[in-house]
Amino acid sequence: MTQHRIAVLAGDGIGPEVMAEAQKVVDAVAAQFEFGIDWHSYLVGGAAIDATGAPLPEATMSGCEAADAILFGSVGGPKWEGLPPNSQPERGSLLPLRKHFELFCNLRPAQIHPGLEGLSPLRADIAAKGMDLLVVRELTGDIYFGEPRGRHGEGEQEYGYDTMRYSRGEIRRIARLAFEAARKRRGKVCSVDKANVLQTSMLWREEVTTIAADYPDVELEHIYIDNAAMQMLRRASEFDVMLCGNLFGDILSDEAAMITGSMGLLPSASLNAAGFGMYEPAGGSAPDIAGQGIANPVAQILSASLMLRHSLNEIAAADAIDAAVSQALADGCLTNELTPAGQAGLSTAAMGDAIVARL
Amino acid sequence: MTQHRIAVLAGDGIGPEVMAEAQKVVDAVAAQFEFGIDWHSYLVGGAAIDATGAPLPEATMSGCEAADAILFGSVGGPKWEGLPPNSQPERGSLLPLRKHFELFCNLRPAQIHPGLEGLSPLRADIAAKGMDLLVVRELTGDIYFGEPRGRHGEGEQEYGYDTMRYSRGEIRRIARLAFEAARKRRGKVCSVDKANVLQTSMLWREEVTTIAADYPDVELEHIYIDNAAMQMLRRASEFDVMLCGNLFGDILSDEAAMITGSMGLLPSASLNAAGFGMYEPAGGSAPDIAGQGIANPVAQILSASLMLRHSLNEIAAADAIDAAVSQALADGCLTNELTPAGQAGLSTAAMGDAIVARL
Ligand SMILES: CC(C)[C@H](C(=O)O)[C@@H](O)C(=O)O
Ligand SMILES: CC(C)[C@H](C(=O)O)[C@@H](O)C(=O)O
Repeated sequence: MTQHRIAVLAGDGIGPEVMAEAQKVVDAVAAQFEFGIDWHSYLVGGAAIDATGAPLPEATMSGCEAADAILFGSVGGPKWEGLPPNSQPERGSLLPLRKHFELFCNLRPAQIHPGLEGLSPLRADIAAKGMDLLVVRELTGDIYFGEPRGRHGEGEQEYGYDTMRYSRGEIRRIARLAFEAARKRRGKVCSVDKANVLQTSMLWREEVTTIAADYPDVELEHIYIDNAAMQMLRRASEFDVMLCGNLFGDILSDEAAMITGSMGLLPSASLNAAGFGMYEPAGGSAPDIAGQGIANPVAQILSASLMLRHSLNEIAAADAIDAAVSQALADGCLTNELTPAGQAGLSTAAMGDAIVARL
Repeated sequence: MTQHRIAVLAGDGIGPEVMAEAQKVVDAVAAQFEFGIDWHSYLVGGAAIDATGAPLPEATMSGCEAADAILFGSVGGPKWEGLPPNSQPERGSLLPLRKHFELFCNLRPAQIHPGLEGLSPLRADIAAKGMDLLVVRELTGDIYFGEPRGRHGEGEQEYGYDTMRYSRGEIRRIARLAFEAARKRRGKVCSVDKANVLQTSMLWREEVTTIAADYPDVELEHIYIDNAAMQMLRRASEFDVMLCGNLFGDILSDEAAMITGSMGLLPSASLNAAGFGMYEPAGGSAPDIAGQGIANPVAQILSASLMLRHSLNEIAAADAIDAAVSQALADGCLTNELTPAGQAGLSTAAMGDAIVARL
């Protein structure tokens, strides 16, 4: 029997609650599809700061190294907001993990779920057309990691600076993954840049165009980031794969997530070239509802499904989870934030159970 | 009688059509409020490329230097899209004008106009709450102009790079204008950055916080750009002044403009420290409807009003234009893109006349 070793980084806020449900669901499919899962939990984020002083302790990093994949919950909360940037839960854990494991490919699907159109902040007639897009965001380059960066000078003249940069090689590898993904979807890539201003974007556009020649069956459109932020509101349904650098992908994937109106349903994957990956919900740690047992575990459960699919090669098990989640939603199993105002939803655990029951 | 000299850069697409209406309206208020306007027209954008080979000819630049303000139409179109970035109509005219005249302060108001809520792409209940925000965008710094920028290396390793940077002095002067603007509005500034990742943003946040101490009557909130792109969809009505650097302001002001659903109504101003400014509609050159006499001239007319207010000190005349525009809209005078589907709107000229009639 294959045995998979998973590093569980539940983190803060609702992280631990929704993680428990994801583990429950994965344990159930593991029994069904006859593979084993070894869960190894490590501290991360605010919880790690409180216990050890650092958001990403050594032990956590080596636990991740020993694992076949990382299942990440969420980190951060008001308690740690006053800390200097590098020591903060989110920045201090996510960025080093991405960098260390070279998780350059971030997949952020965003769907308006059929039946849940009413939750989208978009106008009814626009939301009715639906949205089903995948943001493919480069995650280890761009202005997030470019050097030099820092401060220089004194007084009025003192300035802060950062370097945006991408190499042809970095652009190529993420572009290829976007075109591959588009082939399995609706065959369209929309590449987002600011090539009317940025040198980095000009190279980006050039290189993406070159790669596109290898995918004649995929349609390529280039769009400026400012225009993309607009068009997503007007013609959300027309986008398929949106290929973005790290910074623009950060902005657009969040805008797209908000458009779905159901952030609690959105998983994400961050992969490296070897297929190793980190999987986490798109939403945050939601400290306002933490500890009440009412958070939606679906994003965490679907993140686990992405993990089975992309890092563990347990495709049938991943399909089973996805189908069970769809069925549960179709059957009207919803947590509080998705139910019509005033109507009580399922608890976190009940939602997990509802999905297990449909496996 | 005061005589004002205006450089008119009508540009491409619908630019010349809507500019004619703005001039008509300004001539009418000038007669009423007894000041004189000397219009001097210059080539810009694609029209200038066709005539002279350059998007911003010498003669245009010196015409602008001799003027008290610049009234700008819009530039660009499919015809010039294949040109190298620096020679393209938009980039090749807007960026050098902003830089040359040090137009560091870009004001981009975005309102859901009462009665036109149905045009917003937001859900009816969200749009019903309205939106009335002002994006204050820094316009001469940031990654738009930071050095070094360029390309380096060869093959796979070749990379493109750009430098984001802001000095304390640059942050201060734009922040002060945002707080001043907030005082005359609803007393709230929301400063947008990515201080959890960028050094430039950390300095930005520090400096904005310092300036805020001089404005105890103004409420300050800091928000990350990714979160701002989301929150604008969920609680558009709650924002007042949004203070942004050049890049984030580009993205957010366009998102806000799209949220209004009536881009044809939105003016903008770009000012320098001496009060000299360039005034232009938020929308583009709309080549698809150019030459048909159906474009909405309101954004251009309101841009002229901003010019009277901020550069020419003709406050009463500006107030008169604003009131006439509001009245015309309230009376149901609308151009095609704002009327319910299937219903014909006023022509560009008729809309201009409707506003003149209400002065
Ligand atoms: C916390 C922050 C550094 C991070 C990012 O900007 O990448 C977050 O916004 C995300 O998108 O995962
Ligand atoms: C054309 C382009 C250079 C410009 C910008 O990015 O500033 C435009 O998008 C704008 O916002 O005026």
